[in-house]
Amino acid sequence: MDIKGINSGICIDNFRASGIKEEKYGIALIVNDKICETAGVFTTNSIKGAHILVDRKKIENGFQAIVINSGNANACVKSGIRDAKKMCEMAGRELSIDPRHIGVASTGIIGRKLNLEKIKDLTKKASSRLSDSPEGSKGAAKAIMTTDTKLKQISFEYKGIKIGGIAKGAGMIAPDLATMLCFLTTNAALNRKTLQNALERAVNDSFNLLVIDGDMSTNDTVILMSNGKKSCNSKDFQYLLNYVTREMAKLMARDGEGATKFLEVELQGAKTVNDARAGAKAIVSSSLVKTAVFGENPNWGRITAAIGSKIKFDFEKTDILLESMGESAYVVKKGRVIDLDKVRDILKGRDIRIIVNLNSGKEKAMVWGCDLTPKYVEINAGYN
Amino acid sequence: MDIKGINSGICIDNFRASGIKEEKYGIALIVNDKICETAGVFTTNSIKGAHILVDRKKIENGFQAIVINSGNANACVKSGIRDAKKMCEMAGRELSIDPRHIGVASTGIIGRKLNLEKIKDLTKKASSRLSDSPEGSKGAAKAIMTTDTKLKQISFEYKGIKIGGIAKGAGMIAPDLATMLCFLTTNAALNRKTLQNALERAVNDSFNLLVIDGDMSTNDTVILMSNGKKSCNSKDFQYLLNYVTREMAKLMARDGEGATKFLEVELQGAKTVNDARAGAKAIVSSSLVKTAVFGENPNWGRITAAIGSKIKFDFEKTDILLESMGESAYVVKKGRVIDLDKVRDILKGRDIRIIVNLNSGKEKAMVWGCDLTPKYVEINAGYN
Repeated sequence: MDIKGINSGICIDNFRASGIKEEKYGIALIVNDKICETAGVFTTNSIKGAHILVDRKKIENGFQAIVINSGNANACVKSGIRDAKKMCEMAGRELSIDPRHIGVASTGIIGRKLNLEKIKDLTKKASSRLSDSPEGSKGAAKAIMTTDTKLKQISFEYKGIKIGGIAKGAGMIAPDLATMLCFLTTNAALNRKTLQNALERAVNDSFNLLVIDGDMSTNDTVILMSNGKKSCNSKDFQYLLNYVTREMAKLMARDGEGATKFLEVELQGAKTVNDARAGAKAIVSSSLVKTAVFGENPNWGRITAAIGSKIKFDFEKTDILLESMGESAYVVKKGRVIDLDKVRDILKGRDIRIIVNLNSGKEKAMVWGCDLTPKYVEINAGYN
Repeated sequence: MDIKGINSGICIDNFRASGIKEEKYGIALIVNDKICETAGVFTTNSIKGAHILVDRKKIENGFQAIVINSGNANACVKSGIRDAKKMCEMAGRELSIDPRHIGVASTGIIGRKLNLEKIKDLTKKASSRLSDSPEGSKGAAKAIMTTDTKLKQISFEYKGIKIGGIAKGAGMIAPDLATMLCFLTTNAALNRKTLQNALERAVNDSFNLLVIDGDMSTNDTVILMSNGKKSCNSKDFQYLLNYVTREMAKLMARDGEGATKFLEVELQGAKTVNDARAGAKAIVSSSLVKTAVFGENPNWGRITAAIGSKIKFDFEKTDILLESMGESAYVVKKGRVIDLDKVRDILKGRDIRIIVNLNSGKEKAMVWGCDLTPKYVEINAGYN
C-alpha cells in the first residue's frame, strides 16, 4: 500500500473552507468543529509580518480556524499586530469561535495598512460560503493567490492517514522558506509536539530546498492542523507529510514568476549532506544557470562555476547528466564534454532535471526551482 | 594635494601595452623593460581557470609581462594548464622575455580548448603594436572585453604615486571577487609583500563589494605590477589603490550586463561591520530590489525584506533615503513611509543611491550593483 491521491484538498473529514476574492484582495477561511492540534513553521527573516508575531503566541493553544488575507502583507506597519488581532476577532464573530483559537496569515505588498472594512466585508462573505466539499478547499486556494498563475491544492492518503494542503507562492521564494503560505490539514491523531517536529523536518526537506529568485519573504508560513480522527504512528505520518510538502514545493517551482521551465537539480556523490545541499542550491540559484535553461543553452560551465562557488570538488571526477521528456544525456562525464547536441534537444522540454554526480562520496540532495525569464523581470518591475 | 586623474591608463612611465581583437577572440599584452614586483588576487571559486594555477606558482618571481586572451576562459579543460603555459611561451618568444616572468589570464566561455594557432597569430600582431602611449593601454582594454559594452580604463596620481588600470567584467559578478579581470600598474617602490597586502585590502573593499548577478567566476583575477620608480609610503599607496579599485568596481557596476541603472547602496548605523556589509550586499543582490529599480518602483518593502533575510535589525528605527540627480528623499523614516511620489521621480535617474540607516550603531558599508532587466536575461540566455 503506497501513497494515493484523494480528492479533498484541505477539506478532510470535518474541515470546511471557503474563499472570496474581489480585485486584488481576498479572504480565505479554514474551519473545524473543534480545536485542532496545530503546528507551525514561520520565516527566519528578522523582519516578520505581523500575523507571525500573533500566531506564534497562541499556536500552542491550537487553532480551530484560520483566516487569511491576500493583497496586503500587513508587514512593516505600526498597526500590524493590532490589525492582525482584529482580523481574528472579526473572523471569531462570524464563526462564533474564540479568537484565541483563530490563526491569521497575510500575503501581498509590504508596508501598507490593512483595509479592515474590506476585510470585514470579505470575511462575512467567505463565512457564508464555507463548505466541506473539495470546492470549499478550492475557493480558499484561489482566494490566497497573488502573482500565482496556478491554483495549488493537493491531498493524499497513506495507511488511512490523510493530509490535504493549499498554498500560494510564486516569487520571493528562497531558502530558507519560500515567500509562501501553506496550510495543511490532517486526520493524524498525534500530539502537537510530534506534529511540530514532523512539520519542521518536512519543511527542511521541501520548501527549504526551493528557490525561485533567492529572495526571502517576511511572511512565510506553514500551518498544520489535525482533527485527531485517525490513530497512526509518527513514522507513517512523517512519510506522508514529506511527500505532500515536496509535491507542494514542486507545484510552487512550476509556478515560479515568469517561469517557462521547471528545474529539478540533484547533486549526488558529495562528501557531506551539507555539501550536497549547498552545491545543489548554488546551481538552482544561479542567475546564469537559470537564464541558460531559459535559452535552452547547454552551458554546463555555469553549473560547474556555481557549484565551485560554494563547495570544493574535483571537476575531473564530475558527471553532469540532463533529463527531460524521458530522454537523458551526459553533458559532462568525468570532466569531459560529451554531447552538446543531444542536450540541446533535452533542454527543449518543460521539466528539466540536472543530475550532477561528484563521485566523491555517498551524500545527495535534491532541490527545485525554475528558469529566469524576461517575464520575471516584467512582473517584478511592475508589481505594486 | 589630493588624488587627480591622469591620462595614461596602464602605460605609466615605461609600461607598454597593446591589444588586438578578431571576432570573438582577443589578445592583450602588458610589458615592462624589467621584472616588476607583482601582486595578485584570484577567485575563491574551488574551480579555477588554468591561468590562475599557472600564475600562482610564479607570481612571486615577479612578472615582466602579462598576456591575456578573451573569448575562451581556458577553464575545465584537460589541456588547460599546458595551454596556459604555452601562451606564456609564445608571448615570451615574441617579447624576448623569459616565460617564468610572464603572467597569463583568460576570460570567456568555460570548457573549450584554446585555439593556440589563433592565439599565436594574435600575440604576434599584438606585440607589433606595443606602445607606451594611452592608446596602447586602450588597445589592451578593448582586447579583453567580452560582454562589456564600455571600455574600462582609469589612471590616477597622488603625491607622485601613479596607478593605472584596465579591466573587463560585466556579468557573473558577485562577492567574493567579480567575474572580472583587472590589471593594475604603478610606479610605487614597495616590495612584493607590501603590494600584496595592499592589494588584498583594496580588493576586499572594492571588487568584493560589487554584485552584478550573484554568480562567481572561475577566472577572477587582479594583478598589480610595479616598476618601483617612485619611493613612497605604503599608507599613501593604500589610499590611492583603494580609490582606484573602487572607481574600477563602479565602472563595472555601470556596465553590468543589460543594466539601465547604476546602484550604490550604503548601509549605515549597523552594530558591526559584518552586519553592515551583509545587509548592504543583501539589498544589492536581491532580484526583487533590482527589478523594482528597473521598474522605477519605490518598493521599499523589498529593501527591508532583503536586509532582514541576513541580519537582525529594528524596522521602527530604520531610515531609507533615495538619491539621484542631486535630489534626495526619504521613503521611510523611523519605520514610517514618507514620500513615495518624490521617490518615484528620483528613481527615474540613471545613478541611484539607496542609503539605509539602521540607527543602531556606528558601522557602515557601501556596495555597488545595477538593476536586473529583461536584457540581462536575453544576453545570458543566448551567450555561447
